[in-house]
Amino acid sequence: MKTLIIVSHPELMESHTQRFLWESLPEQDVTWHHLEAVYPDGVIDVTAEQRLLKGHGRIVFQFPLYWYSSPPLLKAWQDAVLTEGFAYGRFGSQLVGKELQLVVATGVPEKDYQAGGLEQFTLPELMRPFQATAIKCQMQYFPLFVISQFDYMSEQERRKLLIQYRQVLTGRLWGTLEEKEAWFEEELTTLGKVHLSEDDCLQVDLLIQQLQTNREHLNDLNWTLQEMRE
Amino acid sequence: MKTLIIVSHPELMESHTQRFLWESLPEQDVTWHHLEAVYPDGVIDVTAEQRLLKGHGRIVFQFPLYWYSSPPLLKAWQDAVLTEGFAYGRFGSQLVGKELQLVVATGVPEKDYQAGGLEQFTLPELMRPFQATAIKCQMQYFPLFVISQFDYMSEQERRKLLIQYRQVLTGRLWGTLEEKEAWFEEELTTLGKVHLSEDDCLQVDLLIQQLQTNREHLNDLNWTLQEMRE
Repeated sequence: MKTLIIVSHPELMESHTQRFLWESLPEQDVTWHHLEAVYPDGVIDVTAEQRLLKGHGRIVFQFPLYWYSSPPLLKAWQDAVLTEGFAYGRFGSQLVGKELQLVVATGVPEKDYQAGGLEQFTLPELMRPFQATAIKCQMQYFPLFVISQFDYMSEQERRKLLIQYRQVLTGRLWGTLEEKEAWFEEELTTLGKVHLSEDDCLQVDLLIQQLQTNREHLNDLNWTLQEMRE
Repeated sequence: MKTLIIVSHPELMESHTQRFLWESLPEQDVTWHHLEAVYPDGVIDVTAEQRLLKGHGRIVFQFPLYWYSSPPLLKAWQDAVLTEGFAYGRFGSQLVGKELQLVVATGVPEKDYQAGGLEQFTLPELMRPFQATAIKCQMQYFPLFVISQFDYMSEQERRKLLIQYRQVLTGRLWGTLEEKEAWFEEELTTLGKVHLSEDDCLQVDLLIQQLQTNREHLNDLNWTLQEMRE
């Protein structure tokens, strides 16, 4: 499935978070679409946008949280592109079944977003307008992916973020353990070795072997459990 | 207290609702500020806007509901005008104590906005980003004023809307019965008679008298009740 990342950020070049995400992109099946760069005058090409949507199964809205919502150009995009007859209406939605994923960057810690916290409301609550949009367009709404205080992240946290972001782009962050293992194996087999030394390649091969061995061991345990129950 | 109505509507002239509201405005203490008319190119004069805010005690955001939120220019206004140091931050907010009122026009019935309803979420829920903004700016957030399906309203419903809207603009819709009576008396005494015939003026005077008599009667009843309790 192809992923369309609709990025809305008025000052993308100055955002460390967005640059990091851009550099983390998989090599294929992903379209990066930065609205402020494509439409500097704010006039949106509705036909082109609707064609883009039709060509992708997974739609990502990626933006920094300004005043508890997206920057204005993403809202302008919604109002212009999600027309009656295309996104909703008597004859159904042409977006039916597509996946909608929000990737939201915040400057304050995620724990501030809760009743009694500094921001009082949770992020899923504040994103209701997007959830309602997904429902209206008969799209499948995914759990938020929140990136908080990127600038304060350690190198290790950033590496974890990179992996999670790549999983988010393919909708694999919320799979079963088995699906996650398959994702890791795939990533390690195809992309992981491109720029690696011979030694590191060997390490990767060992890691894949270890993953497979663990999975076989788990399968055996499950099998034994099932037999005991019967 | 002066009221600033910040209207965001990309096609104001074609909206029956907005025209009706514009024609219902009180003669004084109200500033009508239509963002799309003032800033057709979308570039907002931050200093002018902040000065406007400082000169008014009650701020109204008035807009049609597009994709469960405001049109994009109001969001652009928030992002541009509510700067750190002015609206929030270490040195407090210059908007502290001001009232924030949302006047939202919808094309579908208000009852559709609830769990299990067509739109799944309530309007107060969908307006959380504005409520969170009010909290951050230390403003007092008022209950939503929703205008649903204006085009289907009867003449009588519109008259009721006119009265409620004028009460909303002065923050009097949510007062006690006594405060509401005082509001009616004031309106009838000052504004109501400007364009009336002599006969109608007499009617208005009788109405004011009746209101006062009713109030005296109610006060007497309350007094008797209190005595009986003692």
